[in-house]
Amino acid sequence: MSSLLVSNIKECVDTCIHARWIIPMDTLSSAVGADHHNRNEDGYLTNYSLVIHQGVIQHILPRETTLRNFQAKENVYLDNHCLLPGFINAHSHAGLSFFRGLKEEQNLSKWLRETIWPMEDAYLEVYLRDATFLAIAEMIRNGITCFNDMYWVPRNTCQVAQQVGIRAMVGIVAIEFQKECNSTLEYIAKGEEVWKEFGQCSHLHFCYAPHAPYTVNDETWKVIVSRSLSHGLPIHTHLHETAEECEASSKLDRQSPVCHLSDNPSRPLSNLKRLGLLDCHVIAAHMVHFDKEELEWMASCKEFHVVHCPTSNMKLGCGFCPLESLLDAGINVALGTDSCASNNSLDMLQEIKLAALLAKGRTRDATSVAAYESLSMATSRAARALGLQHKIGTLTTGKEADIIAIDLKSFVETNPVYHPVSSIVYSAKREQITDVWVQGRRLLRNRQLTTISLDNVLKQVERWQAFLGVQKVGNHK
Amino acid sequence: MSSLLVSNIKECVDTCIHARWIIPMDTLSSAVGADHHNRNEDGYLTNYSLVIHQGVIQHILPRETTLRNFQAKENVYLDNHCLLPGFINAHSHAGLSFFRGLKEEQNLSKWLRETIWPMEDAYLEVYLRDATFLAIAEMIRNGITCFNDMYWVPRNTCQVAQQVGIRAMVGIVAIEFQKECNSTLEYIAKGEEVWKEFGQCSHLHFCYAPHAPYTVNDETWKVIVSRSLSHGLPIHTHLHETAEECEASSKLDRQSPVCHLSDNPSRPLSNLKRLGLLDCHVIAAHMVHFDKEELEWMASCKEFHVVHCPTSNMKLGCGFCPLESLLDAGINVALGTDSCASNNSLDMLQEIKLAALLAKGRTRDATSVAAYESLSMATSRAARALGLQHKIGTLTTGKEADIIAIDLKSFVETNPVYHPVSSIVYSAKREQITDVWVQGRRLLRNRQLTTISLDNVLKQVERWQAFLGVQKVGNHK
Repeated sequence: MSSLLVSNIKECVDTCIHARWIIPMDTLSSAVGADHHNRNEDGYLTNYSLVIHQGVIQHILPRETTLRNFQAKENVYLDNHCLLPGFINAHSHAGLSFFRGLKEEQNLSKWLRETIWPMEDAYLEVYLRDATFLAIAEMIRNGITCFNDMYWVPRNTCQVAQQVGIRAMVGIVAIEFQKECNSTLEYIAKGEEVWKEFGQCSHLHFCYAPHAPYTVNDETWKVIVSRSLSHGLPIHTHLHETAEECEASSKLDRQSPVCHLSDNPSRPLSNLKRLGLLDCHVIAAHMVHFDKEELEWMASCKEFHVVHCPTSNMKLGCGFCPLESLLDAGINVALGTDSCASNNSLDMLQEIKLAALLAKGRTRDATSVAAYESLSMATSRAARALGLQHKIGTLTTGKEADIIAIDLKSFVETNPVYHPVSSIVYSAKREQITDVWVQGRRLLRNRQLTTISLDNVLKQVERWQAFLGVQKVGNHK
Repeated sequence: MSSLLVSNIKECVDTCIHARWIIPMDTLSSAVGADHHNRNEDGYLTNYSLVIHQGVIQHILPRETTLRNFQAKENVYLDNHCLLPGFINAHSHAGLSFFRGLKEEQNLSKWLRETIWPMEDAYLEVYLRDATFLAIAEMIRNGITCFNDMYWVPRNTCQVAQQVGIRAMVGIVAIEFQKECNSTLEYIAKGEEVWKEFGQCSHLHFCYAPHAPYTVNDETWKVIVSRSLSHGLPIHTHLHETAEECEASSKLDRQSPVCHLSDNPSRPLSNLKRLGLLDCHVIAAHMVHFDKEELEWMASCKEFHVVHCPTSNMKLGCGFCPLESLLDAGINVALGTDSCASNNSLDMLQEIKLAALLAKGRTRDATSVAAYESLSMATSRAARALGLQHKIGTLTTGKEADIIAIDLKSFVETNPVYHPVSSIVYSAKREQITDVWVQGRRLLRNRQLTTISLDNVLKQVERWQAFLGVQKVGNHK
């Protein structure tokens, strides 16, 4: 490399992106190729370029050096923009997108029993593929380059994600309701088949996804813990989302739809600890409710990651996750949108701003959870949560080129720009995300999706809205 | 009118807007001209038109009837859109816009003393006009047709608002710091001169705006209460924004920068009640902290209106306003952005969504503060708060034509649309606001500002950013 920099022969590469600012989100280690002394103390580079070849970030260099040394098939000049690692949505249910706004203002258990589960029971098979396209179109437009998805048919998620080119971690789902399969073990076996079939696709990743303590029994949890350990796959689940879940499980109140399925009268995490969950790599969505002992358990576990879903937790009446307590205890936290049926957006900028704001409101301390920390929960920390930190989450030489560009200077809404981190976290909105790359492939080009027909997605939505909007379904048993 | 509907002669009018949906935000009274039986139970009309002439809404009629009976100078067809009353930003400081992002994560009193006040002391005169243009450009793009502004130089706000055509309620400011004037009474006198000078402008309205209990002394409060009653102008102030303000005032802790300036050891509202404030029309920004007795005082006062500023309250570490307690007590509540230096956006859709979400999160009840109620706090309730309900706040025959259009159907982010109210409150984003009218004048036309040069605003911002970004100022005394 160093010899190249002084020769006159330009190296041929796929893409060079020249940006006004780059925030690598990697302040703990210096970006190879970048002059560390030029990096602003706030962790961003000015007038640098990313050199991308074969889907990988090859160099991060000053623009002049880049132009002098590299011949790119495509040079992209983004003089008003900031480059960031692509956002990672660490908790989603893409297939639920057609239920956005169908029924509002229901508490979680009522919403599941009276709206979501009955509709899924009746119509899952028919709407699933189109709904997944709608969600993925929205996610790419919102700068999401990777989503950690839990939904009934992992094969569908893989097929659509592969076709579109977005990165996904796909859950091998387990739930005791028999919908697609005749037994829970069949669910797991089917999911593992999908893993084998799509596991070679370099932008698809897999984990086990037991739905929740109140929908998965102890026997199934044991099977999943054992397979997680033997296969080296994380476990993604809903955990302690509501106070009711914790209280009902402690009292084994079977009248409650969110009482865990164990015969052990305890809070769910305590029971799952007994079953070995804390030996695994855990991606725990929500964790709104925990006590001091549970905080210590999570902190002492090497791979326990929480996914904070601030909008969904409020909208379904679950409460506020005490984010700063988790961070103070050294627990890694990522951000998630949850489904757009309980959000009702797949907007990571919204979750990033909210995470920073809610912590300040809850603690009445404006210094709680700084802008950079909140941004890291959608990028570097989220990659760690998914166990993908060697591939994505920061803009670092050698990592895959999952990148987004945000236009800060053309919008009155983000001006002045004193610190790009602050502008992105507290002021930028979705429409300012102009370009998205996954593995160096440009999925959003100047705000236009390149691998999805927006017209077609909207046409399908229109059709499904007319159908689903008038269905009357009974409550879930 | 009824004779016209059966004749063949078309009435000539200025504008007809034909929209897919209209949400009049006026469910307590039927919209004259509209067939009430056609109104959906959720309070919206489908395929209706607004007929506008001389700045006033003349009719709300089915599209066919409108086209049959009216000849408009301009017909606007918005087949993917929903029309709403323009958003009213009930608490703002437009002139602070250049301080957006200048210094982050400071608690309120530190932020005022170490960032805002010293910068204002040094540079207010020079940046003020350009900063006001930036804020107003952002507000119009965000669907704000009226803002209730408190800032040092009311004449400036009037001049810019008049030039641009946006509606404003302008505060006659009072504060004991002598910046622009030699005494507080001179402040008031100067503000009243501005009121006389601009009072005939039909889209400018006035109120008294004593800054806060910790910056205005008892003598000044008495003068303002007396003038408010004699002139029939509301009083707009910051009240109980922080717990510290209440505690320090109770203990007369003069070490605290937010201790009220009275010698009466009491919480500020109690002292102001003694001084007669509750006999006036009060627009109280924030009200994050109140006890049961204070809630009763507010509820028993005929014209006590609270402006809820959820983002600012979190960002400055003030806490969460117990919104549902205010509403349950029958107190009228409006929404405000506060300044974009503490938000950092002037985005009413963000505040509307947040108000609905925070109440659900705080109460752990998904039914708390429904979507329609939150939307009313930015429209009909906000108009009542400002005492302008006879002019604006709903789409009603005879009211002024302050209207916005939101494109719901062209965006994956708001589809499906089962209920336009839910789509707007929980999913729609700024970029979907395409058109804005104030008094029938189209200030935003298909996303383009018609009375402000965006290029010029951005050019000025660039210049001021370079200047203000490097200034070092001492703390405020």
